[in-house]
This record gives sequence, structure tokens and C-alpha cells, in this order.
Amino acid sequence: MRSLCSSLPTAEPGSTVTLEGWVHRRRELARVTFLVVRDRSGLAQVVLPAGTAVPPEETTVRVVGTATANPQAPGGVEVTDATIEALTEPAATPPAELWRPALDVSLPTLLDNAPVLWRHPAQRAKWEIAAASLRGFRATLDELGFTEIATPKFVESATESGANVFAVDYFGRPAYLAQSPQFYKQQLVGVFERVYEVGPVFRAEPHDTVRHLAEYRSLDVELGFIRDHRDVLAVLREVLAGMVSAVHELAGGAVQRTLAAVAVVPDEIPVIHFADALALVGAPADEPDLAPEHERALGAWALAEHGSDFLAVEGYPMRKRPFYTHPWSRDGAGAPPRPPGSAEGSNSFDLLFRGLELVTGGQRLHRPSDYDAAIRARGEDPADYAAYLQAFEHGMPPHGGFAIGLERWVARLVEAANVREVTLFPRDLHRLTP
Amino acid sequence: MRSLCSSLPTAEPGSTVTLEGWVHRRRELARVTFLVVRDRSGLAQVVLPAGTAVPPEETTVRVVGTATANPQAPGGVEVTDATIEALTEPAATPPAELWRPALDVSLPTLLDNAPVLWRHPAQRAKWEIAAASLRGFRATLDELGFTEIATPKFVESATESGANVFAVDYFGRPAYLAQSPQFYKQQLVGVFERVYEVGPVFRAEPHDTVRHLAEYRSLDVELGFIRDHRDVLAVLREVLAGMVSAVHELAGGAVQRTLAAVAVVPDEIPVIHFADALALVGAPADEPDLAPEHERALGAWALAEHGSDFLAVEGYPMRKRPFYTHPWSRDGAGAPPRPPGSAEGSNSFDLLFRGLELVTGGQRLHRPSDYDAAIRARGEDPADYAAYLQAFEHGMPPHGGFAIGLERWVARLVEAANVREVTLFPRDLHRLTP
Repeated sequence: MRSLCSSLPTAEPGSTVTLEGWVHRRRELARVTFLVVRDRSGLAQVVLPAGTAVPPEETTVRVVGTATANPQAPGGVEVTDATIEALTEPAATPPAELWRPALDVSLPTLLDNAPVLWRHPAQRAKWEIAAASLRGFRATLDELGFTEIATPKFVESATESGANVFAVDYFGRPAYLAQSPQFYKQQLVGVFERVYEVGPVFRAEPHDTVRHLAEYRSLDVELGFIRDHRDVLAVLREVLAGMVSAVHELAGGAVQRTLAAVAVVPDEIPVIHFADALALVGAPADEPDLAPEHERALGAWALAEHGSDFLAVEGYPMRKRPFYTHPWSRDGAGAPPRPPGSAEGSNSFDLLFRGLELVTGGQRLHRPSDYDAAIRARGEDPADYAAYLQAFEHGMPPHGGFAIGLERWVARLVEAANVREVTLFPRDLHRLTP
Repeated sequence: MRSLCSSLPTAEPGSTVTLEGWVHRRRELARVTFLVVRDRSGLAQVVLPAGTAVPPEETTVRVVGTATANPQAPGGVEVTDATIEALTEPAATPPAELWRPALDVSLPTLLDNAPVLWRHPAQRAKWEIAAASLRGFRATLDELGFTEIATPKFVESATESGANVFAVDYFGRPAYLAQSPQFYKQQLVGVFERVYEVGPVFRAEPHDTVRHLAEYRSLDVELGFIRDHRDVLAVLREVLAGMVSAVHELAGGAVQRTLAAVAVVPDEIPVIHFADALALVGAPADEPDLAPEHERALGAWALAEHGSDFLAVEGYPMRKRPFYTHPWSRDGAGAPPRPPGSAEGSNSFDLLFRGLELVTGGQRLHRPSDYDAAIRARGEDPADYAAYLQAFEHGMPPHGGFAIGLERWVARLVEAANVREVTLFPRDLHRLTP
């Protein structure tokens, strides 16, 4: 019966234990040989007589020995009187020393050797935080009555956002890879009211930056029967709180290993109108979007003013948002007054996390006549959107949603400079392997 | 404050309730008008004076009225003294009458109108069973110490299975869509030991059958430190039991609506060796695979002999399995004797569910020298697999895994004749929309 390394401290002293894992480190001293075994749960120390043959680092081994208390051993228990059986051939020398506390390699080395270098405990911790985030995301939405959906990645036309799509030879005719599940998640609000999907999205943007990937994991949410985008933002707040709480609960060790300063999600995320945000950062009132330095300044302001790592900016100009965006509607009964310059505003928001855009969301149009007008206003033919628009002809509630980029989320949490550091096998303009 | 239809039976009689949903059905009688509202939780009855204007079926509405006990109403409570507010324009006439108990349409009509026809409660139930299955799959594996992974869908070469891949224009050079996460999940066993992924896989197989899709959801599992494929099968058994139990727990209403006879997963799934299976169905001993009629006969045998909906067939000939398959190894100490004809057998299995292949799995090779030999035996160059093989050079434990096709699973559970009936927006040889 195999024991995990993490359970060794609770083993009965004198009992026989079987560990299985990798040779994390060997240290051959004059009078003793130390073997550190690594498995998915952690590390364990095995003490062997000097001169014992131990296979090289990364070889997989089975260790059978005696659990022995030793206050100097990690966790207070080590394995003695052990036999070591290699489970395969001796491992080749790894591209970096995985037993060192920090993995000190260049980004290209890290990415070229991903299958091996992800084994380093501090590197692996980054993905453990990602996996915990996914569990927190789903658990929160399941609790709120959402249904998980799976929407097609092959789409017939490149309608949503035009140029930056990947083309596929689909049984001899052209198809495209979905840039987002947007159209499908909206249609499925008509079925399930509240839906989410975690899946790959594909962006053929020729950007070579620290924030862009050709394929990333999008955490998509859409819900019906809302008043406006503030209801969407309220669900986003719950989701982020659930993700942070899952990271603490399920990946506490990983948080320690990455030294991540995990964010605290405030009970209410502060919201600023786009027009007020421009004024606050001293940008001209007719700017159509926020520049990265504006986002950073707003992030600093939110921390100073509200003690919050998060800030929602609402009311972005319609002309910078997709055609399905609902126009600004919070001028009526009881809503705050429309800030100056917001005449062209929308019921949409960006969520800044530590001064960087993490989430885009908002309310969508729901009336078929509004879709018809919005598509014609772009000089396009509604007939080209027939499959998408069918759902609206048959009754769609006021609805909205958002999408979180998993890699950006984790990169900000662990303060990685580049999203590629937190992606298992990144794909970009230049990289298609490993 | 909105109430869900399902909570109406517990509303305080005489209290004001607000429902939001779709007009599921209007019935205008001489002395009274009935309005049935549908939301994500179910149906509720609203009673209105004769002649009250009610918008057409599928229009989204907000209903504010009084909860009133009526033993004849569904659930014993209905809404009276109600005002009806349409939330958007009157809905167009749906492509089928969604209020009828059964959705009696042809398959092409169902698929062409998917965004609307998934609203039918009996149709929606099929996906509710799928979503519950996904939750059960993940919950079981989370509990067993597995880590969720996300592997790339863009791959550089079509090495794993050759011809049936989709080609993509990847920034001006060729790339392919992953047919499975096989290579990546194996490499990540080297990092996390136990991994799973739920994601799309892409098959350019020009098959026009009731079982094949160009894109489907694969539930992939891989684990290290196994003895042989029987350890993989034991995890598969836990996973299936968790999926069935989640379907009962989370989608009990859906099970009723689809009249699905949900399977019982036995404590131990019966296993038969491939050679014995051939003999049982009277097929020649040198057949390399099981034909569909053989699978059906074996399914009937498993039910009659073992009272089980599931049967694992192990020891398939190596020549019909992928190159990374581990050869048969259960001849040694304590293992059952090798059946006649199994000289070329493998440590792999298929799981039949009610006589149809649902899962393929098994043990993989783990020694670099075995990979080298297996790839050369196919007349290929190990250098073409360099990225994949790197992980093996640095210590990989004995490991194995399996993959479940979500659509096939649900189709079998609800006894759908065609996987397209249980896929939200299917993609096949002919269909790329909606």
C-alpha cells in the first residue's frame, strides 16, 4: 500500500512505508546518503548508508523502508532501512536542476522544456493555482443555478470580430475557429437562463506581447433576467470571491511556494463610470478607450481610495464595444445621473485587477429589432446572422455576461511578467511546440 | 424579488410573488385564461380573467401576482390577480410547439432549430444529464487527488493518428487540431501524477454515422504509478459511479423527463479477455477487433451473466492499438493465465456500455527504450516525436488512462438513436451551423 510523501509525518514510527515518486535530490555525504523523494503531495527524506547506489535525479522509484522519527527531518519523520527500486531506466540529466528552491532559467528554456520543467515545485504551484481557480469558478456558479454548456469551436463564418480568426479546411470547405462562445452562450440563455463554459478560444492576433496567446482558456458566463450590467457585475464579484477562496483552500501550499499575494475581493467591487475615469486620470473627455497607463493609474487609485485590488469601469463608449452591446440605461428612476460625456455610453464594463484589464462584460441587446438596427448600422446584412438571431425572434430576456481569461488571472495572482509562464503549453505567433 | 417557478408550492398563500420566464402555454377558455410560465426551474400556472391579453408562446414575461392554494394546480399553488409584463417584443411562432409533452420533430428540424428547440423540457433534460455527468466526473477525480489540466488544441504535427486531422493556417504555416490530449496528458503525469481534462477534440473522419461527430467532448484521464491497466479500470469504475450518482442527485427531474433508465455501476466491472470474448461470440480466434454485432452480443452476455450494463474487454491485439500501448503483462505471479491467442495482446481495454464501445483505455509504455523501438517498428523516426519523448527521458512512472466520449455516454443513457440529439450544436461532415 503506497503512502504519499505528505502523509509520512503521521506514519506510525517503526511501521513499514512504501513511497513512490521521483528522485528529487541525492546527497552523498561521507557517512550517509540522503535521498529526497518527490510525489504529487510533496517531499520526503530517505536516509541510506553511505555508498548506497541511488539512481539519478528524476528517475521514478519505489522506496520501501521504516518510518523513523527524527526532529531534524522535514515533518519530523524520515524513512530508514530502505530499499530503492527504480521503476524505469535511469533518467537523463534534466535541463535545469529541479531540486533548487528557485527555477532560474530563461523564458525560452522554460517553454522549450515545459514537460520537464513544470515538475519544479514552484513552477507546478502556478498551475495548481489555476486548477484551484477553475474549481472555485465552477462551484460558485453551480451554487447559483448555472448550467455548464459546451459550444462548438468550429463556426461557419468569421462574423463576430472579423479578421483575427484561424481558418480551417473543414471537409473541403472553409470554417473558422471560434474566438469566443459569445453567440452560443447568449442563445443558450434562452434555454437554461444561466450558463457557463470553460474552454479554449482561438485568436489569430499577430500580437507578440506578454499578454497575448493564440489559444487561451476563457471562463465564460451569461445570465438572463437582469436589470442591467450591474447584476452581471454582482455575479462576477461572487465568482471572483469563489475563485480566491478555492485558491486558499485547495492550493494553500502552492500560494506559499509562489509567494503570491492572493487578492481580497471586497464585498462590493468599486465602480467608476468611464467618463469619470477619463477625468480622474487627466485624459481628454473624447478618448474612446483607456490606455494601459490609464488602467494602471486607476488600479492605484482603487487601492488607495477603496483598498481594493479590483475596479470596474462601466459605461464604455458604444463605438468601442461589439454590436450586441446594450446602450447605457442607468439614467432613470433612482439610477445615478449620467456623467458628462457619456451620451454614447454602454451598459458594459471592464474589470481591472491590479491595474490590468482582466474581464470584459456587460449587458447585451435582447430585442430582435435592436439587433436588426445594430447590424445594419455596421453596414452588414442581418441575414448573415440568421442562426444567431433566431433565438431573439423567439423571446430572449434581458441578459448579459462576462469572460475571464484564465492565464491572465493566474499571471496577475502570482505576479508573473508573462502569461506564458503560467500556461502549460503556450501557443503564440512563434510557438507551436512542445 | 424574483421567485423561481419551482418554489411556488412553498410560497405563503396570499403573498405577492414575482415570476420571470417564458410564456410556455396560453389557454383561453370561456371563463378563464390560463398562462403557464416556464423558467429554468420548471413550470407555474397563472390564472387570469377571460379575455386578458397574454403575449404569444415563448415571449419573456414578468408576472406579479398572488400565490393562491388550489389543489388542482400543479404543485398545489397557482398565481392569481396577476399583471403580465412582456420583457421584449412578442415572440415569433416557434418551429415546433414547445408546450406539448413530446417534441415530435425530425432530426434535421431539431438540429436546424437547435437554439429554440433545446428549450423543450424533454430536450433540455438531455443536456441537464450531460451537465450533471460532467460534475460527477470532476468531483470524483478531484476527490481522488487528480489535477485538472488544459492542453493545447493546436499541434505541430499529425503524428498520433495520421490522416484524419483538420489542418489550420497557423500564422502562415500549417498546424493541426488535436485529435486527443493523449501526448500531453501523459507528459503531465510526470508533473502531477494524476490528471484529467474535459475539452473538445477534433476528428476529420469522413464518417456519416449516428455515432460520429467532427467535434466532441472528451473526458480524459491519466494516472501514474499503476501496476497495469486493471488499476486504470478501477479508477474508471469510480468515475462512472460518480457520474451516475451525480445524474440522480442533480438531474433527477431530467431523468424523469427523458424516461432514462440510468445505469447501475457494479462494485466491480466484469472483465473478459479479448481472446475469450472472441470465443464467446463464436468469432475466429485471429480476428483483430470486435465487430459491432460482437459488442452487442457481449453486452447481452454481461447483463445476463453478471447483471451489469458494463463490460470491460481487455487484452486487445497490439496491432490494433496505438504505438504507445503497453503489451500484455498479466502472466506473472498471481495473474490469471494468458488465454490462448493472446500472445500479441496488450494491457488495454474497451469498456462496453449496453453493448456499445464507450471508453478506450489501458496502460501505456513508460520506458524510453520501448518508445524508441515501438516508433521504429512503425517505420517512423523517433526524432519526429522529440517533444513528446522528452518527458520519458527524464523519468516517467508506469501509467495509463482512458477517455470517455460525453455525447456517446449521454446518448446511451437516454437511449437516443443518434449522438446529434444530445449535442447542443453538433458538427459533422455536413453540418457547420447553427
